[in-house]
Amino acid sequence: MNFHTRKWVKPEDLNPNGSLFGGSLLRWIDEEAAIYAIVQLENPKVVTKYMSEINFVSSAKQGDIIELGITATAFGTTSITMCCEVRNKITRKSILTIDKIVFVNINDYGDPTPHGKTKIKYIDEQFEDLGN
Amino acid sequence: MNFHTRKWVKPEDLNPNGSLFGGSLLRWIDEEAAIYAIVQLENPKVVTKYMSEINFVSSAKQGDIIELGITATAFGTTSITMCCEVRNKITRKSILTIDKIVFVNINDYGDPTPHGKTKIKYIDEQFEDLGN
Amino acid sequence: MNFHTRKWVKPEDLNPNGSLFGGSLLRWIDEEAAIYAIVQLENPKVVTKYMSEINFVSSAKQGDIIELGITATAFGTTSITMCCEVRNKITRKSILTIDKIVFVNINDYGDPTPHGKTKIKYIDEQFEDLGN
Amino acid sequence: MNFHTRKWVKPEDLNPNGSLFGGSLLRWIDEEAAIYAIVQLENPKVVTKYMSEINFVSSAKQGDIIELGITATAFGTTSITMCCEVRNKITRKSILTIDKIVFVNINDYGDPTPHGKTKIKYIDEQFEDLGN
Amino acid sequence: MNFHTRKWVKPEDLNPNGSLFGGSLLRWIDEEAAIYAIVQLENPKVVTKYMSEINFVSSAKQGDIIELGITATAFGTTSITMCCEVRNKITRKSILTIDKIVFVNINDYGDPTPHGKTKIKYIDEQFEDLGN
Amino acid sequence: MNFHTRKWVKPEDLNPNGSLFGGSLLRWIDEEAAIYAIVQLENPKVVTKYMSEINFVSSAKQGDIIELGITATAFGTTSITMCCEVRNKITRKSILTIDKIVFVNINDYGDPTPHGKTKIKYIDEQFEDLGN
Repeated sequence: MNFHTRKWVKPEDLNPNGSLFGGSLLRWIDEEAAIYAIVQLENPKVVTKYMSEINFVSSAKQGDIIELGITATAFGTTSITMCCEVRNKITRKSILTIDKIVFVNINDYGDPTPHGKTKIKYIDEQFEDLGN
Repeated sequence: MNFHTRKWVKPEDLNPNGSLFGGSLLRWIDEEAAIYAIVQLENPKVVTKYMSEINFVSSAKQGDIIELGITATAFGTTSITMCCEVRNKITRKSILTIDKIVFVNINDYGDPTPHGKTKIKYIDEQFEDLGN
Repeated sequence: MNFHTRKWVKPEDLNPNGSLFGGSLLRWIDEEAAIYAIVQLENPKVVTKYMSEINFVSSAKQGDIIELGITATAFGTTSITMCCEVRNKITRKSILTIDKIVFVNINDYGDPTPHGKTKIKYIDEQFEDLGN
Repeated sequence: MNFHTRKWVKPEDLNPNGSLFGGSLLRWIDEEAAIYAIVQLENPKVVTKYMSEINFVSSAKQGDIIELGITATAFGTTSITMCCEVRNKITRKSILTIDKIVFVNINDYGDPTPHGKTKIKYIDEQFEDLGN
Repeated sequence: MNFHTRKWVKPEDLNPNGSLFGGSLLRWIDEEAAIYAIVQLENPKVVTKYMSEINFVSSAKQGDIIELGITATAFGTTSITMCCEVRNKITRKSILTIDKIVFVNINDYGDPTPHGKTKIKYIDEQFEDLGN
Repeated sequence: MNFHTRKWVKPEDLNPNGSLFGGSLLRWIDEEAAIYAIVQLENPKVVTKYMSEINFVSSAKQGDIIELGITATAFGTTSITMCCEVRNKITRKSILTIDKIVFVNINDYGDPTPHGKTKIKYIDEQFEDLGN
């Protein structure tokens, strides 16, 4: 799995107990999954349809850097299924995993529409350097 | 199920397609579940541990009023299990349901701690008027 | 008075002295009053017209749960008058009260328009359970 | 009255009807009043105590520039009373006025404390140029 | 240089190290420069085109009041060049300076358009009192 | 240059003209540069010190996906210099470039402190798959 987007846990992201607010984390995941789906389906109109169970394995605290990884696992006619892992960028410790996030490809009227994709589109990052 | 917190869907809550951003909705649910758990467990220190699968049944658009309902379904030694429904306040149409949201009661060191609760605490709202 | 929406006071809601920022509280009240007015007037187009004096009786701190209560007190031809109380959900201590909040029902051109309502619409929550 | 802080009304500040959300405006006013009080009382610890009635005279729309003016009208032993006007920067049209906003000077324990001030401190802006 | 907009550094503006987040500061500057450009060019459609180098001279901490000053330094055919200083309102200590911020005047299609201005428009604040 | 963090341009990120607000973009860049510096210097305490001139080459609109790339270009005793490019993820069109962003490594007292690094730390992503 490739990890792209990173977040620096700031005071605005904390719950009153001083750890990363679960709701903020879910918001970040939904955005990252939408981005992944849009890139793969080559359509800006996608909506969240389903998430499988979510295990909050560990938490994060102010100042932590976390990274979000998404990978497509299946392509339906009008949908894309992805899995997700969020981990601490420095320690690599898992924060949460979601086995299935399903987005649906929609048309201008909001109806599910075939996207015509059947596999992950790899973008030629192989030829770029891999610093961080 | 009782519905308490309401939200007025504002431009800041929308995804780029102009409907309610799923991530914003998940953020609201996590906060409402935390509030419910704190009230029931009478302890401000609770953390999100688990959410079962989430079905995004329908969406919401700018100007909609939505309401969030949470009910406890089980009390573990250190945990509380709740179910959740979000619906349109006006049309009563369901937006999403989550069968299980588990929060854990923690102590000052962040460790799971028995909460001593076994059933829902009803607050005497029976005697208040029920306007909206 | 019925209390619906609850808020969990998070770091993002604090003033630099570490207590609940008054401006955040006023923002929450205005949204809750708008929601109440929309439900009662059955029209999504309402605007804040007037607030009577506001007494900040006590404050709230990080981690507190507060709840907002609104009740209609009068129906004008194009307006609705409400009163508001905000209190700590756990201690029931009053945080602030506003005797009069007036919203005006407007049409698509932004002009005041008769709403045809004369009393509070009660929604049948009597038959729902009253847990929290 | 001097107008200092300006705001550019952005999508994030709108209500669902597309005009400036009243709650956002109140949030801005409370911050500006706090700043004014801190500068005058030379104490960072001040809290909002009271606002007199608020008339929302006109609204603002996306892209408008608004400016906030605050002036002290009275100094109590532990308090400062200010008046406020918000207007459209370009048209000078009034958006709202508040006759009295009272802030209290507090000590480290949150108790009201004499501030020793009796009149407005003028800062030597007279000698600065007055462009915008 | 005239300083107009002020900000009260709140928890939501901090980086995880507890000082003012540089990104928040840049966001405030860009908004203030846009407002200044709109007022001078008498056109709401302006876009950021260029910023010269930025020196973060000193930082700010929670509770600090900072003020932003902008002055036009040159008028091009379709552009306006401004300089900017941000300083601590109380101590007058400089936080950062930017020598050149260039905005471009655009038409409804997003294309650069002559604005017809050649010098700073002074607004008659000379006749207003200069309290803070 | 490697592009990591992506953003989906949402209504909350727009200026009143409906394109990506420059201030939001600068906020994202500062966070991404901080994350890069923290990872490279292996110290969570870093502060923005300097940015060289910024050219806003093109803009972005609602729904666009943009990606941020940062690469270290020099290591000083207490500083790290990076360059930055932001581009549209789909079209690869450049949005802005910054040649030099300098962060300083600080200690617990906020003073510059040697970081002991002299070159980019490559993280073993070579062995991960490169989907998006």
